[in-house]
Amino acid sequence: MSQINKLFKSNLNVVNMGSQIFHEEVLKQDNPSVNIDWKPPGAGDEKLLEALDWLSDQSAIDQANDQVIEIMMSSKMVLTGVARAIDVVPGMSKHTILHAGPPITFEKMPGPMKGAVIGALIYEKLAKDADEALALAQSDSITYASCHDHQTVGAMTGVISANMLVHCVKNETYGNYGFSMVHEGSGYTVQRYGSWDEGVINRLNWLDQEFRPVLNDAIKLSGGIDVGATIAQALHMSDECHNRNKASSSLFYKQIVPFLLQTEYPKEVLLRVSQFINGNEHYHLSITMAASKAQLDAANGVKNSTIVTALSRNGYEFGIKVSGLGKDHWFTGPARMVDGLFFPGYSQADACPDMGDSAISETAGLGGFSLGNAPAIVQFVGGTVADALSYVKKMYEITWSENKNYTIPFLNFRGTPAGVDVRKVIETGILPIITTGIAHKERGKGQIGAGITTPPQECFEKALIALSDAYKKGEE
Amino acid sequence: MSQINKLFKSNLNVVNMGSQIFHEEVLKQDNPSVNIDWKPPGAGDEKLLEALDWLSDQSAIDQANDQVIEIMMSSKMVLTGVARAIDVVPGMSKHTILHAGPPITFEKMPGPMKGAVIGALIYEKLAKDADEALALAQSDSITYASCHDHQTVGAMTGVISANMLVHCVKNETYGNYGFSMVHEGSGYTVQRYGSWDEGVINRLNWLDQEFRPVLNDAIKLSGGIDVGATIAQALHMSDECHNRNKASSSLFYKQIVPFLLQTEYPKEVLLRVSQFINGNEHYHLSITMAASKAQLDAANGVKNSTIVTALSRNGYEFGIKVSGLGKDHWFTGPARMVDGLFFPGYSQADACPDMGDSAISETAGLGGFSLGNAPAIVQFVGGTVADALSYVKKMYEITWSENKNYTIPFLNFRGTPAGVDVRKVIETGILPIITTGIAHKERGKGQIGAGITTPPQECFEKALIALSDAYKKGEE
Repeated sequence: MSQINKLFKSNLNVVNMGSQIFHEEVLKQDNPSVNIDWKPPGAGDEKLLEALDWLSDQSAIDQANDQVIEIMMSSKMVLTGVARAIDVVPGMSKHTILHAGPPITFEKMPGPMKGAVIGALIYEKLAKDADEALALAQSDSITYASCHDHQTVGAMTGVISANMLVHCVKNETYGNYGFSMVHEGSGYTVQRYGSWDEGVINRLNWLDQEFRPVLNDAIKLSGGIDVGATIAQALHMSDECHNRNKASSSLFYKQIVPFLLQTEYPKEVLLRVSQFINGNEHYHLSITMAASKAQLDAANGVKNSTIVTALSRNGYEFGIKVSGLGKDHWFTGPARMVDGLFFPGYSQADACPDMGDSAISETAGLGGFSLGNAPAIVQFVGGTVADALSYVKKMYEITWSENKNYTIPFLNFRGTPAGVDVRKVIETGILPIITTGIAHKERGKGQIGAGITTPPQECFEKALIALSDAYKKGEE
Repeated sequence: MSQINKLFKSNLNVVNMGSQIFHEEVLKQDNPSVNIDWKPPGAGDEKLLEALDWLSDQSAIDQANDQVIEIMMSSKMVLTGVARAIDVVPGMSKHTILHAGPPITFEKMPGPMKGAVIGALIYEKLAKDADEALALAQSDSITYASCHDHQTVGAMTGVISANMLVHCVKNETYGNYGFSMVHEGSGYTVQRYGSWDEGVINRLNWLDQEFRPVLNDAIKLSGGIDVGATIAQALHMSDECHNRNKASSSLFYKQIVPFLLQTEYPKEVLLRVSQFINGNEHYHLSITMAASKAQLDAANGVKNSTIVTALSRNGYEFGIKVSGLGKDHWFTGPARMVDGLFFPGYSQADACPDMGDSAISETAGLGGFSLGNAPAIVQFVGGTVADALSYVKKMYEITWSENKNYTIPFLNFRGTPAGVDVRKVIETGILPIITTGIAHKERGKGQIGAGITTPPQECFEKALIALSDAYKKGEE
């Protein structure tokens, strides 16, 4: 160290912002320097900055956002039954195929989603084999639609056809329903990852023929099950309720078995039905998703609100919906890859881009937004326990409020971050954290890992501009 | 600040040890001082210091302690059935009454324990009412004995008579059994807190007549249930497995229901039996206790070991056992009061001193020793979430090793502190932390709160002297 630097040492204390070059130079000369990782909002894009400016500190927006949170908090989500999609999902027909994420054509679907469509057409007996199904899938006879646009959410490919089984969750406060495909279990050969082998089709048939009437009778006998209460408890039992559902699934088993025992079915049937639930540590994910959908749909369409009501991906694009811009508008960007842990023998090169409607959990303050409740999950999705808490703390910077119904003991029972605010995402450059499964990029090869990802910033940029345009229009 | 002090400020940095007066004076003069809360080991008692000196750095003791930990870690504890105490507990007779803690006479028993004895005599039809029972209890016809001295542990009063129902857990590695009274549920009027009203007696009868044969058949059909594996999972689901047993009880329900459904009993019987388990969030405590007893009994009697194999209280005295001093020796001191949260309408003035064998959990590395897994428990036992983690960190200072089978995600999956070392307790002055229920001091009034307590240091002082004497004798 030079004499001159020594003399200055105790007087020179640098806080550097922006470019790192100056910071590094100061350090080289043995002087203390703290670097603040700061970028201008919206990466300095003038149009975004102008939109952000328009939308900041507007009391009408604050009030609208408060109203969205109030709707979310006052929603009582109740599991009322299980049913064939065609019997309950609005707009469903024998030739409709629902899928995860924003709308997409068959051609653009990733491998696993195409596989799931083939499986669905075979299951529905619209095709007798994969070749016939592929031809049909490419024809005009099949109508593709986004689950989200039909009060429904589906994990991974999210492919749901007429006779597939969905959980029905009613938002008793606001009267609307959310639906989600019953979770069929883990492993490589499952329908939602695009497999259509005999085991997959047999399981779908069994779910429809035996499981459905028995479970539905039990749910009816229960008078409905309060899903929000289950989630709240599970969060205190180390679930984050997206990729860790061990506690919520255990609680559901405890809730439903007494009513199964009160149905008219013989013990061997009850054993098969209850074991299907008992053997699946992710069983409750589908119920959590349907409940979150019912909760967020009620919060959709609040004029001026900048809060996100859907985060969803189809393996090609990521799409978001924003309350103030109505339930039909998607804002999209390219789907990202997932950073995580792969099952033995697989790597990022085998992975399909981010896919599935399950990020409805994060939209409701669960999953990545409550990771601090689920330290054990790092064994499944990667990262460290310290990451799990720091992710959650970051999410408070981009949310409008906290979910008082879902709390985090390790943060002194603070509510989970709730209500992603498009403005805050652009302002901070922090993107929502999502925990998720990773599908093989080819159809029929199932799950190959799990990890953590984020949406592309583009979705939020498009939404911000649209919000600003809508707001200006309303002001005129 | 005086000029002279200003001059010295940056040079005077005090680390103070022992008396706090000097530390405070330095602070008053605006100089930095750190105070270290240090006391000489054993409060400076010469005999204790000499004993500690003898017992420190002895490789024979280190080896013995390693052996104790190895026995604990290699124990496989399996639930093999439920049975009447008289049919399985060694030394049990029609006129034996087992109780929690070290041996005690009826006269010295606290109120709730006397109440539980009265209830037991009525249940056993040895007395027709409380007056008759009281007279019989005070006569020579009844033999009182410590549960712990009969391979058994009992929560709170721990009163167990011939026809009461116990869980049987086999240590498959070492062949020995541990027994613990089936947990009858929560509330004011329960047998283990000394109530004997009609509801209590009816429940004991039902447990014996209907619950016992059905549950026992189901356990037999299961081939035995691995209790250690259940505990390990429950610790990752926010149980500390002493005062929070919600996850372990849920897991047990999931384990046993499939086998209940395979028994010959009709659905309405299975519904009653399974609902008894389903409705009790502490059901698994009794299984955890029996398993921990089977584990620690196997680790008892290792010559030279300074590790504690029992922590137990009878509401009058606290008693500990030490592996190197054999299974029949108790080292006792007066039972303390419990610091915690009281149910509405009750306070410390109503409380019975610390009572119950349930601290076998802490002895095995659970309860207070794994509080960091159960942040939500502070709502039940008091304190803050930060306390929960700091208690655990303190326990590492007084334990010989870590329980590699029971881990704490929030401490990066570190094993729970395991094997309380009598030497370390005296050396550091840190006492084992125990989470526990609080009984009303009068019989028949049940539980009035829950909290945290410690044993009296006296138990460890007596044990240290005995260890030193035994060690010296062995060296001669």
